[in-house]
Amino acid sequence: MFNGFAQDFDSSEVVLFGSPFDGTASYRAGSRFAPMEIRNISESLETYSPYLQLDLQDYSLHDAGDLPLYAAANDVENILDKIEAFASHIATQGKKPLMLGGDHLTTLPSIRAVFRSYPDLCVIQLDAHTDLADKFMGDALSHASVMRRVWDFLGDKRIFQLGIRSGPGEEFRWAEGRTYLYPFNLKKINSVVEAVGGRPVYLTVDLDVLDPSVAPGTGTPEPGGVFFHELLETLMACRSLNIVAADLVELAPHYDHSGASTVAAAKLVREIAGLMVI
Amino acid sequence: MFNGFAQDFDSSEVVLFGSPFDGTASYRAGSRFAPMEIRNISESLETYSPYLQLDLQDYSLHDAGDLPLYAAANDVENILDKIEAFASHIATQGKKPLMLGGDHLTTLPSIRAVFRSYPDLCVIQLDAHTDLADKFMGDALSHASVMRRVWDFLGDKRIFQLGIRSGPGEEFRWAEGRTYLYPFNLKKINSVVEAVGGRPVYLTVDLDVLDPSVAPGTGTPEPGGVFFHELLETLMACRSLNIVAADLVELAPHYDHSGASTVAAAKLVREIAGLMVI
Amino acid sequence: MFNGFAQDFDSSEVVLFGSPFDGTASYRAGSRFAPMEIRNISESLETYSPYLQLDLQDYSLHDAGDLPLYAAANDVENILDKIEAFASHIATQGKKPLMLGGDHLTTLPSIRAVFRSYPDLCVIQLDAHTDLADKFMGDALSHASVMRRVWDFLGDKRIFQLGIRSGPGEEFRWAEGRTYLYPFNLKKINSVVEAVGGRPVYLTVDLDVLDPSVAPGTGTPEPGGVFFHELLETLMACRSLNIVAADLVELAPHYDHSGASTVAAAKLVREIAGLMVI
Amino acid sequence: MFNGFAQDFDSSEVVLFGSPFDGTASYRAGSRFAPMEIRNISESLETYSPYLQLDLQDYSLHDAGDLPLYAAANDVENILDKIEAFASHIATQGKKPLMLGGDHLTTLPSIRAVFRSYPDLCVIQLDAHTDLADKFMGDALSHASVMRRVWDFLGDKRIFQLGIRSGPGEEFRWAEGRTYLYPFNLKKINSVVEAVGGRPVYLTVDLDVLDPSVAPGTGTPEPGGVFFHELLETLMACRSLNIVAADLVELAPHYDHSGASTVAAAKLVREIAGLMVI
Amino acid sequence: MFNGFAQDFDSSEVVLFGSPFDGTASYRAGSRFAPMEIRNISESLETYSPYLQLDLQDYSLHDAGDLPLYAAANDVENILDKIEAFASHIATQGKKPLMLGGDHLTTLPSIRAVFRSYPDLCVIQLDAHTDLADKFMGDALSHASVMRRVWDFLGDKRIFQLGIRSGPGEEFRWAEGRTYLYPFNLKKINSVVEAVGGRPVYLTVDLDVLDPSVAPGTGTPEPGGVFFHELLETLMACRSLNIVAADLVELAPHYDHSGASTVAAAKLVREIAGLMVI
Amino acid sequence: MFNGFAQDFDSSEVVLFGSPFDGTASYRAGSRFAPMEIRNISESLETYSPYLQLDLQDYSLHDAGDLPLYAAANDVENILDKIEAFASHIATQGKKPLMLGGDHLTTLPSIRAVFRSYPDLCVIQLDAHTDLADKFMGDALSHASVMRRVWDFLGDKRIFQLGIRSGPGEEFRWAEGRTYLYPFNLKKINSVVEAVGGRPVYLTVDLDVLDPSVAPGTGTPEPGGVFFHELLETLMACRSLNIVAADLVELAPHYDHSGASTVAAAKLVREIAGLMVI
Repeated sequence: MFNGFAQDFDSSEVVLFGSPFDGTASYRAGSRFAPMEIRNISESLETYSPYLQLDLQDYSLHDAGDLPLYAAANDVENILDKIEAFASHIATQGKKPLMLGGDHLTTLPSIRAVFRSYPDLCVIQLDAHTDLADKFMGDALSHASVMRRVWDFLGDKRIFQLGIRSGPGEEFRWAEGRTYLYPFNLKKINSVVEAVGGRPVYLTVDLDVLDPSVAPGTGTPEPGGVFFHELLETLMACRSLNIVAADLVELAPHYDHSGASTVAAAKLVREIAGLMVI
Repeated sequence: MFNGFAQDFDSSEVVLFGSPFDGTASYRAGSRFAPMEIRNISESLETYSPYLQLDLQDYSLHDAGDLPLYAAANDVENILDKIEAFASHIATQGKKPLMLGGDHLTTLPSIRAVFRSYPDLCVIQLDAHTDLADKFMGDALSHASVMRRVWDFLGDKRIFQLGIRSGPGEEFRWAEGRTYLYPFNLKKINSVVEAVGGRPVYLTVDLDVLDPSVAPGTGTPEPGGVFFHELLETLMACRSLNIVAADLVELAPHYDHSGASTVAAAKLVREIAGLMVI
Repeated sequence: MFNGFAQDFDSSEVVLFGSPFDGTASYRAGSRFAPMEIRNISESLETYSPYLQLDLQDYSLHDAGDLPLYAAANDVENILDKIEAFASHIATQGKKPLMLGGDHLTTLPSIRAVFRSYPDLCVIQLDAHTDLADKFMGDALSHASVMRRVWDFLGDKRIFQLGIRSGPGEEFRWAEGRTYLYPFNLKKINSVVEAVGGRPVYLTVDLDVLDPSVAPGTGTPEPGGVFFHELLETLMACRSLNIVAADLVELAPHYDHSGASTVAAAKLVREIAGLMVI
Repeated sequence: MFNGFAQDFDSSEVVLFGSPFDGTASYRAGSRFAPMEIRNISESLETYSPYLQLDLQDYSLHDAGDLPLYAAANDVENILDKIEAFASHIATQGKKPLMLGGDHLTTLPSIRAVFRSYPDLCVIQLDAHTDLADKFMGDALSHASVMRRVWDFLGDKRIFQLGIRSGPGEEFRWAEGRTYLYPFNLKKINSVVEAVGGRPVYLTVDLDVLDPSVAPGTGTPEPGGVFFHELLETLMACRSLNIVAADLVELAPHYDHSGASTVAAAKLVREIAGLMVI
Repeated sequence: MFNGFAQDFDSSEVVLFGSPFDGTASYRAGSRFAPMEIRNISESLETYSPYLQLDLQDYSLHDAGDLPLYAAANDVENILDKIEAFASHIATQGKKPLMLGGDHLTTLPSIRAVFRSYPDLCVIQLDAHTDLADKFMGDALSHASVMRRVWDFLGDKRIFQLGIRSGPGEEFRWAEGRTYLYPFNLKKINSVVEAVGGRPVYLTVDLDVLDPSVAPGTGTPEPGGVFFHELLETLMACRSLNIVAADLVELAPHYDHSGASTVAAAKLVREIAGLMVI
Repeated sequence: MFNGFAQDFDSSEVVLFGSPFDGTASYRAGSRFAPMEIRNISESLETYSPYLQLDLQDYSLHDAGDLPLYAAANDVENILDKIEAFASHIATQGKKPLMLGGDHLTTLPSIRAVFRSYPDLCVIQLDAHTDLADKFMGDALSHASVMRRVWDFLGDKRIFQLGIRSGPGEEFRWAEGRTYLYPFNLKKINSVVEAVGGRPVYLTVDLDVLDPSVAPGTGTPEPGGVFFHELLETLMACRSLNIVAADLVELAPHYDHSGASTVAAAKLVREIAGLMVI
């Protein structure tokens, strides 16, 4: 159980669950192990956030465990269906899903499920990579195409991409007019918050938005990312937003020999959960 | 280039190639990186084998590099087709394929290709696991079902399994009368060699047949395996066999922090290549 | 949950529990993390043992989780009391405790609890170290004095020590006539089994009885230990014994970068559990 | 010997010593190995500081080695007494103790000893954690309660805490009016320097004040810390202070696979020593 | 092949080559493995730079592989001669050499070769260390004396040193009036760019200019370095320069367990190559 | 200080010293760090050997520390001269040198020094590699040529090589009639002991004679080596020999992440020292 998520499903406002699937990881796999390791290391953190000045124990938070996915399944669509079903199960009851990936493709079914409950949903993506491939290595369903697939149903100007510092040139160009792509850092968060206004928000955090010095334990580390305190400040800038769902993806704990990436992920989960209840 | 495989394709008797695909790894992935790392570390080994008393440099050996596979492809059958095509390309010219996996599923297309050239093919599998699942987690194509899929076309009593020490009870029972399954160690190799006689042999070595002390860098380490010298002696016992193709699979180099697993794999490749040319 | 220990407490014959305390580790600490990591990696193992030809799923086995101990407590006696209370809770109901340490001192309260239910209890200790210090660095309660403390209440000729290859000279000499100390390896197991006969047995396995090549992830690795298959054969030689309780201690998973030590521990737990139910 | 601390005890102004005790580490232990590893890696650093523009070799610095503590002793008070005795031995001769921990509890006896020589002592604590627990897991003597114990004898408004970003909510609240707690970063150092004025200062640096990207090798890494250059600038801002004693604690070198944390610790020791002699 | 360097030698403007020699590494060796590992990990990066908004695939770039050096040769001068010969081979054809070291001494012959083609050559050195020893441990040819040896033939005021934060006091003093030494960070890059003007530039990047949090995989990590984005911005500030040759040295990949240092090196190579062709 | 080597130089029979030079390591360097790490880890071992039934503390053993060598010196001959001088200093006083390398080349000056005191000296080499190159990569002074250089002055049939399992074919052939080369294992030790008889013996142990599972932390791991207990039994078979000097070389501790190789080296040193005093 994630430290502080001790309430039962029915009484909870936020429901945490894991999607341990990394079958589309193109470079280094292993985010299948992320939900387990994030929970384990959460014990080393306080449940009190001095940033938000709240204690998770004072809120209604449930940890539903991991979905019984098979990390290396051949049938990717079936995996995505399972995630979508569970996220729907949460969202349709007015609760807020908080998913631990898995590779970034696990975000697709989660957003799709939430979108059905919130047709005016906006997506804020904190990430190193564009993830806008129409097909990646021939596959339409890939961690590298996830935002393109989200765009397929969300349409133009609903996706806000921050921290992006890697991708093919054509994806950067494709994004123009379709998504709001703010490259290299998170400094535009206040503009984003203003643009989003009161609309419901799905927040997806790809851990590789952090610099590899902060989070080396990820599938495709990309130098030049943001620091932990910058990401934290960005989250704090989102306090006024109506975050109805969120996820944190792409931690690959087996490449995180010191535990620093994993504890960073866990602390982000604590703060995101705080944002979802205040 | 693997150290000592300096000849060109046309003049070579043995053709080495890599199949960097690990999309069906159920526990820890990473054998996608094996061919590259085996080649790199082969530089630390001599080309001379004091066991076989031969030098690879005196033989016609070609390294064809890696097939352009995508390690995390959704379309597994397409990956297997590519491997099968290249193995056929080698075998139909009377050359001997020597494949570096990849997870154990990569063995399936390689055997299938060789089988077409050698209808009386026998398979010797050195492995920790039965790999006889009809379906594994719902998938008929999996590293855990590879020998079942080989049996589908090879039929009864053509597969010799040694070193097996893990699997569901029903797979051990299923094997009876269908494969020759010699559990726990490699001591029955002489019986196997005698039974095989002059028939063409495909030798598949799953690195996890070795004890995890010897080869920790593998997807599913299984304690209680054989030592390197035992595996080496087993290979030496195969000198009289007509090995027409071989592979070495399931090295996951990112779990091999000291390099010991990787250099073990490379040395096995050297010795197997020697067996294929003497 | 340890893979295969899915039954509830009341209906179970064997009850697994963790004692995550390593406060007396003299060289490298970290066995506090062992129960958690053993459970995690148990998912990579089958529940079927081809050695015992049984499947854990066919037996009544319960995993009670970890005792709420504080790994670095100042008050060691209080920790030991908690372990003793829980082991008593199991043993007095005719169930068999199977404890995951923690450092070797956690064995003391567990044996003490079992001893009350079985006054003719024998102890078989598989270990690299004598653990017979009267005081270690001034402390009477230490992983290095645990067998001396057991002797305090069990008396002469009830403790069988195998695999011992390290200790002060005076401890080797002290053992003469008091314990049965068989140094260096496990070859005397058959004599031990015969000597023990039908008496109830507490089996304590210090993971460092294994060679550091097999189990580097331990507090005080001692070169020259036994191999996994030797330890496995030793366990198999104990089939006829009446094992009423057991433990496995001193895995320090943070020194086990490849997972090989941890999976060895988990496989031993599976086999020991099998011995306790056949 | 720490590089540059080549003078004898009697002639030295600063005396370095190690307190290799980590018996109260609540999450990951191992600071027992810190003094040894800091000394080892100090050889890779110059003795010249370009920040302070001085060379340690030009000053009177002695390395007294490690106190003969037992890292896992049951009797914590006895350990603390030994540290206090040695720190007193240094301070009462007008020399300045510079201690290498050990876990943060080792700071308690060191401050207590120095306090007897300097009744108007102030303490500057650079740390991620409040360390203000009255009892931690039932123990009054713990790394997590060290500053509360110091407050017990030092009283209100003598402790300056900077960089604090973790702790239970009640500790943050307790601190109000009792300590000067400046959360999240070190930017208030100039106010602190001004407030302290000419009073004697004990400087205690918990390595985890640094971000885990900079110093992953610590017991309880807490994301969102300060960078090395910020800590360095903070030390430089202390030039005018009368630092009569100092320590650096909580390096856990076995979690520092690259050596980066350890060399950071060593460089801090060099700079702190410089501050104590200029 | 470095990702994107697919053109042949004759048609290329920039020629990449490796000098896998680390025989003078004084603390931790291993940069001999850098060129191989940088190439391997370059596959995980895009060939498109969003910073320079160009794609390497649109330019004429050749990867000439590694020079056949022996990393531990006794005859250092012979090694240097081989590097100088190959760099000359490139430079005299009007192409731009881009060398992957190796330890920093490999820079000496490369600069010497380029200097013959460009007598008004300036050198920009981004580094943690002064590298100005006349002799280091008795050796005139050492990674720690490389800039002194370059000064021997380049003379005063042709070397610009940025990021320097370690060295003996006498080297800092020696530099005055002879080199432009800007300590601690890279903020003076604009002054340097202005001072250099249109003269041809050799850019040498010692990876240890980065903070050890960013690049722990180096021979002598020196805390307090610059971040990746600062180094990147410094490179961008060099756009207007006439960079006729460059190198990146001192990556020691075996100390880079997570790959973060190696991918940082590879991304720098991509950007430096971009600077050399725009 | 190596645990148990507490006596002063003058009163000691055996003098331990370190030669931290690895400048000729051809694959992975790092044995320069071996003496320091062996001493550090020796604290985790008892001073009592249950194999020899003696305690080092009862004998006259001195640890002279490390020679002030520069691991990466250009002038190899100068390094060798320093080692030879110190070994002579020991041997000419009738004491027995026990050297910790360093790469295997450090053995050359040590044997040369001892040979002057014992003209009928025999050498027993336990090693994976032939080390009989006349020149290695052009160098006559190399770890790979050390036994050839020893043969230069010792002549035919004075060198006994056991465990050898790697080398160029021509070195195996060259050895015939010149050295006694027993390949693959140590089983011929009794013949060697008999052949040597009462002549003075220099025992050189290259740690890579052990299997990489036992000692992965070495420069050039070579699969198929001996186990620790086999090496130990081989040492015990040497009890009757007159060992006048010894060394242990080629531990590369930075590749020994678990410490298993290092503690194996330390335990071997303890047993070798025991052999030298009984």
